[in-house]
Amino acid sequence: MSKELALPEQYSLKPIGIVHSCFKEKFAIPRQPALVPAAKGEIELFSPYDDPVALEGLEKVSHLWLSFIFHQALPKENEVRLRVRPPRLGGNKKIGVFATRATHRPNPLGLSVVKLDGLKNGRLQISGIDLLDGTPLVDIKPYVPYADSLPSAINAIASDPPELSKVEFEHSALHSAKHHQQRLQQPAIALIEQMLAQDPKPAYQKPNPTRIYGVRIWDLEVQWRYLESGQISVTSVDLA
Amino acid sequence: MSKELALPEQYSLKPIGIVHSCFKEKFAIPRQPALVPAAKGEIELFSPYDDPVALEGLEKVSHLWLSFIFHQALPKENEVRLRVRPPRLGGNKKIGVFATRATHRPNPLGLSVVKLDGLKNGRLQISGIDLLDGTPLVDIKPYVPYADSLPSAINAIASDPPELSKVEFEHSALHSAKHHQQRLQQPAIALIEQMLAQDPKPAYQKPNPTRIYGVRIWDLEVQWRYLESGQISVTSVDLA
Repeated sequence: MSKELALPEQYSLKPIGIVHSCFKEKFAIPRQPALVPAAKGEIELFSPYDDPVALEGLEKVSHLWLSFIFHQALPKENEVRLRVRPPRLGGNKKIGVFATRATHRPNPLGLSVVKLDGLKNGRLQISGIDLLDGTPLVDIKPYVPYADSLPSAINAIASDPPELSKVEFEHSALHSAKHHQQRLQQPAIALIEQMLAQDPKPAYQKPNPTRIYGVRIWDLEVQWRYLESGQISVTSVDLA
Repeated sequence: MSKELALPEQYSLKPIGIVHSCFKEKFAIPRQPALVPAAKGEIELFSPYDDPVALEGLEKVSHLWLSFIFHQALPKENEVRLRVRPPRLGGNKKIGVFATRATHRPNPLGLSVVKLDGLKNGRLQISGIDLLDGTPLVDIKPYVPYADSLPSAINAIASDPPELSKVEFEHSALHSAKHHQQRLQQPAIALIEQMLAQDPKPAYQKPNPTRIYGVRIWDLEVQWRYLESGQISVTSVDLA
């Protein structure tokens, strides 16, 4: 009766490559791709997939689906989470794991659409990413607009992008950010603005204006605090 | 220098469920989802994921991403295919495997968006599928339109849905199809029309009007031939 018995107990996937990303820790990574266009990275493919012939045709494609492993959220042996608390619901309300894209899932498989900006030194240049540095990739597929773009699809749990917070820089933080942007040759200021506009702290957490938050992007430590108005103020941008 | 060395050689994924599909063999399966809305199936989840709490929230979602295993296209040990012949290019021109969604890929991981029609007897009812019966599922995620729907994305390899072929039924085949449609309580006629309108035979193959083609859907064997005009004529629809 059950085909279940005939299936292998598991399938093995090998990493085909790794993502080098501006995001060096989980905190403050945008919760979906495309929310932060200035978030950049590149894909290093492993042998034998680092052969340019495997990429032939990608010059005709603007976006990619990446299938990857949530390598910092691997399930523990025999751990079963059927319900999770997605950040989108404030981080304190549970829903079924298959109704969310939470990182803790039965299989630690992530899925993300990214913009393909080109190929440089054999590495695919990507942007609009929501991927942690060092993420192992298991597949790359082209986005196919006529099949994948469903503007009339409904998701009443996450119907619109999250509301944006206002972000300002303290004078010295902006000065330093400009310096590092020049040095890194990366849009660091736009990245900080777009990343913090998503308000990385848990939605249920009431900001305390005396508390300093921090996160690493590229080789920088970015710090900020919440003003009484709720606005975000970047207090420093320094080498980590 | 290389983070590659620090990665596990492989990751194990366990099947969380299986797809029961109208498509009983690989031949004639549409090449992308949504091309054949009458293609229906259901998802049987395995324990412990067959608990209704894992699905809480999906009633607010119209479409799902399914991550699955191409179980009839598992790579052989040490087999490396860096270029493949996608049907879309006629089946006789090679391009890089990462620029296609071909089934033979470094990891046998499939990705498909399907319409979620509801829950019946604990099984998710899905349509617009391009999945083989018995396909092992490794993940289910909700479609998130604001992040996933990119109508301005470009894919110049597959920019539009394939052109449709004209399909007609011979009188006796239509009569029989109506009977089986009633018996199965499934839109068998629409399924046959939509499936064959995709013209399942390899694009480089010149149709021979004397040759009969056949394929299994549900418990039926559908046969057809190509008229001199190129039009498809269904010659019989019988129990397989």
